[in-house]
Amino acid sequence: MQPPQHPLRLPDRLARALADIVGADALLTDPADCWAYGYDNSRRQGQPGAVVFVRAAEQVRQLVQLCADAHLPVTGRGLGTGTTGATVPERGGLVIAFERMNRLLQIDGANRLARVEPGLTNQALQQALEKHGFFWPPDPTSAAVCTIGGNLAYNSAGPRAVKYGTPRENTLGLTAVTGTGELIRTGVNTTKGVVGYDLTRLLIGSEGTLGLIVGATLKLSPLPEARRTLAATYKDIHAAATAVAAIMAQPVTPCALEFMDAAAIEMVREFSDLGLAPETGAMLMIEVDGPAGCVEISAAAVSAAARVPGLLELRTAADPADVAALWKTRKALSPALRHVAPKKINEDVVVPVSHMASFIDGLDQLSRRTGIRIVNFGHAGNGNIHVNLLVDPDDSDELRRAQECLNAVFDLVVHFGGTLSGEHGVGLEKRDFVDRELDPAALRLMHAIKRQFDPAGILNPGKGLPAPGPESEPKSQSQSE
Amino acid sequence: MQPPQHPLRLPDRLARALADIVGADALLTDPADCWAYGYDNSRRQGQPGAVVFVRAAEQVRQLVQLCADAHLPVTGRGLGTGTTGATVPERGGLVIAFERMNRLLQIDGANRLARVEPGLTNQALQQALEKHGFFWPPDPTSAAVCTIGGNLAYNSAGPRAVKYGTPRENTLGLTAVTGTGELIRTGVNTTKGVVGYDLTRLLIGSEGTLGLIVGATLKLSPLPEARRTLAATYKDIHAAATAVAAIMAQPVTPCALEFMDAAAIEMVREFSDLGLAPETGAMLMIEVDGPAGCVEISAAAVSAAARVPGLLELRTAADPADVAALWKTRKALSPALRHVAPKKINEDVVVPVSHMASFIDGLDQLSRRTGIRIVNFGHAGNGNIHVNLLVDPDDSDELRRAQECLNAVFDLVVHFGGTLSGEHGVGLEKRDFVDRELDPAALRLMHAIKRQFDPAGILNPGKGLPAPGPESEPKSQSQSE
Repeated sequence: MQPPQHPLRLPDRLARALADIVGADALLTDPADCWAYGYDNSRRQGQPGAVVFVRAAEQVRQLVQLCADAHLPVTGRGLGTGTTGATVPERGGLVIAFERMNRLLQIDGANRLARVEPGLTNQALQQALEKHGFFWPPDPTSAAVCTIGGNLAYNSAGPRAVKYGTPRENTLGLTAVTGTGELIRTGVNTTKGVVGYDLTRLLIGSEGTLGLIVGATLKLSPLPEARRTLAATYKDIHAAATAVAAIMAQPVTPCALEFMDAAAIEMVREFSDLGLAPETGAMLMIEVDGPAGCVEISAAAVSAAARVPGLLELRTAADPADVAALWKTRKALSPALRHVAPKKINEDVVVPVSHMASFIDGLDQLSRRTGIRIVNFGHAGNGNIHVNLLVDPDDSDELRRAQECLNAVFDLVVHFGGTLSGEHGVGLEKRDFVDRELDPAALRLMHAIKRQFDPAGILNPGKGLPAPGPESEPKSQSQSE
Repeated sequence: MQPPQHPLRLPDRLARALADIVGADALLTDPADCWAYGYDNSRRQGQPGAVVFVRAAEQVRQLVQLCADAHLPVTGRGLGTGTTGATVPERGGLVIAFERMNRLLQIDGANRLARVEPGLTNQALQQALEKHGFFWPPDPTSAAVCTIGGNLAYNSAGPRAVKYGTPRENTLGLTAVTGTGELIRTGVNTTKGVVGYDLTRLLIGSEGTLGLIVGATLKLSPLPEARRTLAATYKDIHAAATAVAAIMAQPVTPCALEFMDAAAIEMVREFSDLGLAPETGAMLMIEVDGPAGCVEISAAAVSAAARVPGLLELRTAADPADVAALWKTRKALSPALRHVAPKKINEDVVVPVSHMASFIDGLDQLSRRTGIRIVNFGHAGNGNIHVNLLVDPDDSDELRRAQECLNAVFDLVVHFGGTLSGEHGVGLEKRDFVDRELDPAALRLMHAIKRQFDPAGILNPGKGLPAPGPESEPKSQSQSE
């Protein structure tokens, strides 16, 4: 099934056919021009044979048909903010860039839905929705520069998922082009519907390996009237994790429940004075939202739950300036990390909330054993932990130890019943690890589904799932006895 | 692919093999005994060749392997409350009854999850969860006597879906047995996860045609502290629909937003005096929930939205007795319907909320044209409308007109961009209609997915999807040009 390797330059005949579909001004074939569309935020790089800028589903349909006939790999691309190499054209071929197919087609408040093209940025959508009193819950950190198509391809969420869910819970229907160049329409225009199999959720999170999403009907939520922000510091991660469990066990679900561990706090301290007590071992940022008359009550409820033994300080923001001050620590983290370790390995594993403290203890032991500094922060309410391994890219021994450490991190995640990715996806980065987590029989079915959507194997080949082994074929009945 | 028809009695050899797996006390083979497991609430009836009462996933695995080898149809069955014939063994074969595989295995409050066997009733689950301060949002009307496995098979929701979603939004993972007798594990233990394709949602709503669900990890929600109930009457359905849109456009999402049309109100009036003004043309039942200190504010917000021109009366319940009084009209409806029309055709179509009034106008015209009395009520917040055609079963001409009318109802639903089923599923009842709604290319993929999960075509054959035509095979590439 592995497609042949393709030379950097496409045959002229193929290049002309691409230009016929999208127009010459929407086609790049010069390797130097194409280079800029071969990377993502994983810092991996591939070399596309050509890049096209599409504007319509019909163009995508024709392009994929052409590539299916030519057995040319096709990789969809939003704005390249992914962190797993899922949009890196490892095997060359065609990159379909959706950045110009970015219209917001409809906002329908009465039906709480919006219709969008895949290249629209998350932020542009939110700004347009705000005027109508709505928002779309998924809010990745990269919202300003990431596309809805990318959010759907990775099922990317962000802090608000703890209350509002991920793209899978906030999408009503899709249009997509499968590997045979067929346009399919999935899902419904309504919040209920159970006719046919759920292809909408199957496509969401499939990283462009089953189909290229060319349109989406998104489920909107009404903007809450008000929000309250709290910061709580604890003597250690165990106390903070106890607070997280207590917060999640009472009726007010926060709209953000973020945490930073001791290593993260220490790192931030190196760069700015945040006025945190020296004994601070963990920190939670908690937000609640709702009707203006309710947020005080909601804030009081989560505050009460956050007051567990080991709490050092609990502050509620008094005004917007104070909110900004409270978020300062959390926001200082990313630049600090970049400064210390430009080549950090940033994972986004998930463990059940009740195992979070033990998991971070385990990471601590791993860090001491391998000598790799590990900094953890993330979305505590979902147990979604961004595990950052800080590595000097020029130290080959450290890189080797970091890989060993990462390997052990994934084993630890599986040991605690977690999952290797909460929202970054698998791409190339985790492709060779996910069979530790996935059930072998389920994995065989995933490969079988892939073959139905993409019989020629041209859609983002080699991403998301480990390569099918001899075990990947469905068992014949005689074998299954 | 149509399996051979099977005689009523199984060959002795096969019956012995079944007994070897489940034990003789968990096997029925006498046609008279089996008869009771061949119906559901659609009032259709099939005749199983055998019925087994399973207690463990491993038994299900062995049974399905046996049936795959023998090419014997297998139909899973909870407690038979479905309304579409999805559990009716139209082609005979084996009925696997899950009613004894009904343990609640774990309630894990810190991680907001419960693990259950498929035969547990919805109500038994809710009662156990209540003690821990949680609930599972799906709440079909049949909750007292329907199983979680059935809820998942149909994606059955109920009134709370408007705020809390359907089983697809409230399930973390599944174990299931596919048509080859393989046990698969899907999903995660956490609220985020994007490793592999989403087989969990693919199985949910697939009516036992892709796999038999033998275990589920359910996502729990904390029980709200308090609830407020309101009833609003309007001069006509247009006013009520305007109120629904206004309620859905403001920040407080009700946990129930039910409606009754003029025909429904008139029907109830025939049986009891409800004290409704004679000019009442539509009614909404609205509930909000949340922290005790917030529900008054929430109730005020939805009340304000409900006050549109055409409002006749808006009442808020003062106490539990008053809540019961307010629900009296809605609760009187079912017995009234049963009395007037034991053979009612009860559909559960969905249209976008903004088209609800026009849709009901359209039904009104249909009713006048065909002479079939139509009564509508349902879950207004989702646009999920229970359309009841009242038919005298002894009047063959009326039955013919009712079918004609139903046919036109489905066309009207599709015209308004709706879906033929919100929560009852497709089964046998709607199997021959759903290709009006489903995209042909998507339907071909659904059939292709079915073949991967169930190559022998033994799992609930003929349900859910229209029979694959010559068009169902994936297009070859030359055809797709």
